[in-house]
Amino acid sequence: MKHYQAWCFDLDGTVYRGETAIPEAVRLIGQLRDSGSRIFFITNNSALTPQMQAEKLMRMGIRAAPEEIMTSSIATAGYLAGQYGRMDVTMIGEEGLREALEEAGHRIVTEGGEAVVVGIDRQISYDKLAAACLAVSAGAPFIATNGDLAFPDERGLVPGNGAFAGLIGSVTGVQPVVIGKPESHMIAEIARKQGLRKDGMILVGDNYETDIKAGLRFGIDTLHVDTGVTRKEALAGHSEQPTYSLRSLSEWEI
Amino acid sequence: MKHYQAWCFDLDGTVYRGETAIPEAVRLIGQLRDSGSRIFFITNNSALTPQMQAEKLMRMGIRAAPEEIMTSSIATAGYLAGQYGRMDVTMIGEEGLREALEEAGHRIVTEGGEAVVVGIDRQISYDKLAAACLAVSAGAPFIATNGDLAFPDERGLVPGNGAFAGLIGSVTGVQPVVIGKPESHMIAEIARKQGLRKDGMILVGDNYETDIKAGLRFGIDTLHVDTGVTRKEALAGHSEQPTYSLRSLSEWEI
Repeated sequence: MKHYQAWCFDLDGTVYRGETAIPEAVRLIGQLRDSGSRIFFITNNSALTPQMQAEKLMRMGIRAAPEEIMTSSIATAGYLAGQYGRMDVTMIGEEGLREALEEAGHRIVTEGGEAVVVGIDRQISYDKLAAACLAVSAGAPFIATNGDLAFPDERGLVPGNGAFAGLIGSVTGVQPVVIGKPESHMIAEIARKQGLRKDGMILVGDNYETDIKAGLRFGIDTLHVDTGVTRKEALAGHSEQPTYSLRSLSEWEI
Repeated sequence: MKHYQAWCFDLDGTVYRGETAIPEAVRLIGQLRDSGSRIFFITNNSALTPQMQAEKLMRMGIRAAPEEIMTSSIATAGYLAGQYGRMDVTMIGEEGLREALEEAGHRIVTEGGEAVVVGIDRQISYDKLAAACLAVSAGAPFIATNGDLAFPDERGLVPGNGAFAGLIGSVTGVQPVVIGKPESHMIAEIARKQGLRKDGMILVGDNYETDIKAGLRFGIDTLHVDTGVTRKEALAGHSEQPTYSLRSLSEWEI
C-alpha cells in the first residue's frame, strides 16, 4: 500500500479506547516508524499539554514524544498568532491551553482581553464567562479550541467546550471560530511546522464527523478505522468517502 | 376606564428603572390601592426572595408586601408540585429559588435529583452543570425559571439564566420547560392562589416580547407602557395588540 511521509493519528477510538491501547494500532505505529514514516497524534483535548498527553500514551505502552502531539490548544495559539500577532487573551481553559498560549507569545489577562479563547475548564465560573461575554461584545476575536458539545465521563455525557462556547455565543450573538476537528487547523499546523506536502500526509481516525471530515477539508488522504464511533456500514450514507476504510489497523500492509 | 380587581405589574421598565422608581407608576399604584384593586408584582428574577424583592421596592419608596411578589422561582416551585408532587430537586440557582422550592415542599439534593431546576446562579460551577446534565439525560424533568439569555449589568450584557439552560439543552438534547415571561405560569399562579377570574385581571408591562405576550397567552387584558424596552410605535408591527398602550401610566384614569 502507499507509503506516506507523515501519519496523523486521532487518539480515542483509534489508538486507544478510554485508558486501554488498541494493540493493532500500536503495532502499525511501530511498523510505520521502522519504515521511516513520521508519526503525529492529533487531539481536540485542550486541557493536556503535549508532555501530559505523551505521558498518558506512554502509560498505555504507546511510544510518543511531546513534539509528535498536536492539540487544539497549540493550533489555537498558532492561529491567533498568525491572524493577529501576539495578544492579550481572556482565556477560559486549563493547563494545556495556558501553556500553548504563553509559548506562542500571548499574555493571559483576567479582563480587557484583545481576544477570547475558550477551551474546556473544569474550574469555570460565572465571572470568567461574564468577562468573556463582555470582551466578545466589545469586538474581541472569539475562538473555541473545539466545538464538542459533550463528552463521556464515567457517569455519562458531561458538558464539553463547545457547550460553553455556545453559551457565550447565545449571550453575545457572535459565533466562535472553531479550531479543533472537523476543522483542519491542527493538520495545517503540522504541515506548516514540519514543512510537509499534502500528498505525503494521511489522517487516520474512527469518527467520520470529526476526523475524516478534517482530513477531507484539508485535502489529504484519509483512513477510516472501525474501532470507535463510526461503523464501516455507516460510511455509505456520506457523499465524500475516506480514501480507505478498514475494520482494524492490522489490515494495513506496509 | 375599566375597574380591574387585580393589577399585575412588571417591575424593571414599568415600576422602576434600574434603582429609581418611575413616579407615574408609583402614583397609579397608590390610586389603585385606594380604589380597592389588589396589586401584584411579577418578575423573571429568580435570585431574590419575595421578602428581598419587597425590600428593594420599599427602598425606592414603592409600597409592597412580600405576598404581592410573584417570582419565576415561586411559579417554578408551584409548577413542579402541581405536575409531579414533592420532589428531590437538582437545583442551579440562588436564595430566591432555594427558598421557593423548599417552601413548596421540595428537597434540594446535590446529585440524583428527580427534577432539574435552573435559575440564575452567580456561583455556577462545572460540577453543578455536569450534575444537571446527567440528571436530565437520565430523564428528570428539566425546568428553567426563565429563558432570558442575557441581562445588563453596569459593564454590559452578562449571561442570563436562559444561556445556562441552553448549555444543558445543547449537551443533553432536551429543551427545558420555561416558566417566566413570556410564558404565563406566574400570572396563572397568582390567579390560582388568589382565586381570581381572568376578566378581573390586567397585566402592565413595558416589554412586548415578555410582559405583553405573557398576558396575551394567559388571556387577560394587557396594558403596554412606553417607559422601557418596547416603544409605542413598535407595537404596530405585531399582529396581536395589547388592550391599551400609554406613553406614561399618568394617562390612566381611575
